[in-house]
Amino acid sequence: MSQSIHAALSADPNADGAVTRAQGFSACGFTAGIKESGLPDLALLISDRPATAAAVYTQNQSTAAPVHISKAHSANGALRAAIVNSGNANCATGDQGLADAREMTQLTASLLGCEPDDVFVNSTGIIGHYLPMALLRAAIPQLSPTSDGGADFARSIMTTDTFQKEAVATFEANGITYTIGGCAKGAGMIHPDMATLLAFFTTDAPISADVLDASFRYAMDRSFNMVTIDGDTSTNDSSVILANGAAGGESLGGEALDAFTAALLEVATTLAKMMARDGEGATKRISMTVSGANTWEDARDVARTIVVSPLLKAALSKYDPNWGRILMAAGRAGVPYDLDQVRIWIADLCVFDGTATNVPEEEASAKTQGEEVFLRMDLGQGDAEATAWGCDLTEEYVRFNADYVT
Amino acid sequence: MSQSIHAALSADPNADGAVTRAQGFSACGFTAGIKESGLPDLALLISDRPATAAAVYTQNQSTAAPVHISKAHSANGALRAAIVNSGNANCATGDQGLADAREMTQLTASLLGCEPDDVFVNSTGIIGHYLPMALLRAAIPQLSPTSDGGADFARSIMTTDTFQKEAVATFEANGITYTIGGCAKGAGMIHPDMATLLAFFTTDAPISADVLDASFRYAMDRSFNMVTIDGDTSTNDSSVILANGAAGGESLGGEALDAFTAALLEVATTLAKMMARDGEGATKRISMTVSGANTWEDARDVARTIVVSPLLKAALSKYDPNWGRILMAAGRAGVPYDLDQVRIWIADLCVFDGTATNVPEEEASAKTQGEEVFLRMDLGQGDAEATAWGCDLTEEYVRFNADYVT
Repeated sequence: MSQSIHAALSADPNADGAVTRAQGFSACGFTAGIKESGLPDLALLISDRPATAAAVYTQNQSTAAPVHISKAHSANGALRAAIVNSGNANCATGDQGLADAREMTQLTASLLGCEPDDVFVNSTGIIGHYLPMALLRAAIPQLSPTSDGGADFARSIMTTDTFQKEAVATFEANGITYTIGGCAKGAGMIHPDMATLLAFFTTDAPISADVLDASFRYAMDRSFNMVTIDGDTSTNDSSVILANGAAGGESLGGEALDAFTAALLEVATTLAKMMARDGEGATKRISMTVSGANTWEDARDVARTIVVSPLLKAALSKYDPNWGRILMAAGRAGVPYDLDQVRIWIADLCVFDGTATNVPEEEASAKTQGEEVFLRMDLGQGDAEATAWGCDLTEEYVRFNADYVT
Repeated sequence: MSQSIHAALSADPNADGAVTRAQGFSACGFTAGIKESGLPDLALLISDRPATAAAVYTQNQSTAAPVHISKAHSANGALRAAIVNSGNANCATGDQGLADAREMTQLTASLLGCEPDDVFVNSTGIIGHYLPMALLRAAIPQLSPTSDGGADFARSIMTTDTFQKEAVATFEANGITYTIGGCAKGAGMIHPDMATLLAFFTTDAPISADVLDASFRYAMDRSFNMVTIDGDTSTNDSSVILANGAAGGESLGGEALDAFTAALLEVATTLAKMMARDGEGATKRISMTVSGANTWEDARDVARTIVVSPLLKAALSKYDPNWGRILMAAGRAGVPYDLDQVRIWIADLCVFDGTATNVPEEEASAKTQGEEVFLRMDLGQGDAEATAWGCDLTEEYVRFNADYVT
């Protein structure tokens, strides 16, 4: 078994069109006129045959209408298509919003000759406005997905993202080469619990629905659920995978399933890290590893709590190696530790080992100046470890979010 | 029974010296030389007789050394004095830090002729540096508290606060007029490592230690614990009350105790709201009321989660009446609700009642332009209600927190 992963900090030409790289998938983007900017705002992804499916959704109580519909449609572990618009979130829109989301699946089903409940639907954009259904009724029947349409799909779901986020991996199992492709959009309101973002994964591997569900949740917990931009979570967050088995072979299990899960985690982690880097106003990614914890959950909770701290994020925007803020932020994660046993590193420099190590500040500051800052805190308790990703906090974030008028 | 409260958004001359208004209390401030600025950085508060005491401390796991010492000293419900320095937090300082905090209580006890465990101690300032004990050994024996020293005390505990925070109330019970005074420092987090919240309360009412503890926790939960500036918590946060009974009468109970608790809550709420207004970079206070909840705890959790949302805070800095962000933020509080039953007001304007009410945006924006924005979200479930206070998020916050170098 072997794997090869193509992805990078920003858009990687080797991952272009990732979501249609697996056999049997087509996609497209379209300009329906929902966005005033005239940028593409409608996207369709389809499998040419029935596919098993798994999905995870936002935990936010203010759930948007399409999330309710998609939850119902994905519950049986089978989907054929995903229809998505950007520019309007169809959230806080009451019964009309539910009817509109349902109609989007009906229009898509008519186009494809499938059932509405084979269609996943989502929306992203402003909250509290009804969807412009006249535009969607005109646009959806015109959609024409192709096997090289993955990049257009990825572009059409973007809102405030500054670059497309695509990643692809292949793995070999039982003598067959399988492909997993994914794309995602960010870039504000991102926080654990299935944070913003919409993400779409496709694979031509054959996998039963319940096995796919377990593998998908495992990968999501260790990738998208470890990204935090600002602590806010979206009303529309959803991530979905379709597995159509087009590359042939028997339903994956055992080592073949392990290879699939590893490749899926790589694709998802690559996309998650891209989202951290593309946080609104961000100039760098923060990679926060917590080690020496008693459990993975403890390590996760501390890492996520640190990486969302506005005080730490602001410090790092100006190369300030302010490890006091790491200690301060860690302390509210709800995980007990003994401060005397704690150690903190900035890159490979140990700056705290129960007390300050008095590393010269210029030396520590130099370690914070790249595109990515690597921080580690060891709790001195056990062997568990987790990494969370975030970004720095800049004046640009505030300017952007103050000026983005509803 | 009657109450009269003197306090205001900023320093109120009527509350000047609040912490020495109750009979039998003296205080002072001093310039020990810990702060490079030459501003006062040492403060002492004493009761002229034994006092019952109650205190609440930070939940942060990275607890500073003086918090450990003060917890031990206040555990028996009795204190005589509080010694506090600003300019250095004595946090992340290991065994040396504990020895230094202990020595501060010994120096104070020697000055006053009491026991070290009658002394509360705290520190606020930068993390990770040992206290300059030579300066403290020279300064503490020179301290000379007076009955009009309350304002000096309040000034000497400040770090980056832009104004002194003092409040005082009187109430009558059993024919005697009692006084409760308080002062606090925040939350003017220009230098974020100095973001500690310290609060000191004094009263000349006679109250047994366990009754005082319950009353104090009730008031703290509904005042300081409802303020959030940026979601970060300090390693040193502490709030303490001394009750010396100097005004005479019998130990409070029944209606007299209710009057005490109401007056204490007023003083604490006044100080808490001052802290929200003085949040670093803030231009306005946000008052977020959640009503219609099943329990006070539910209302509290939703209100606090909303008021810490960076997306909402940024929107309000530019008068954007972005109620979608209220819904979004509320959704991650972990409190279930039915979006169809929810209503949201900006001041007296209902902007959402299951769907958008289509109030003209200019009209809603006009309601966000004062020194305080009043928001309300009704969950449509029960009768419980809670209010949390915060502030807007401005580019100034990021600039201050990024430009300050440790």
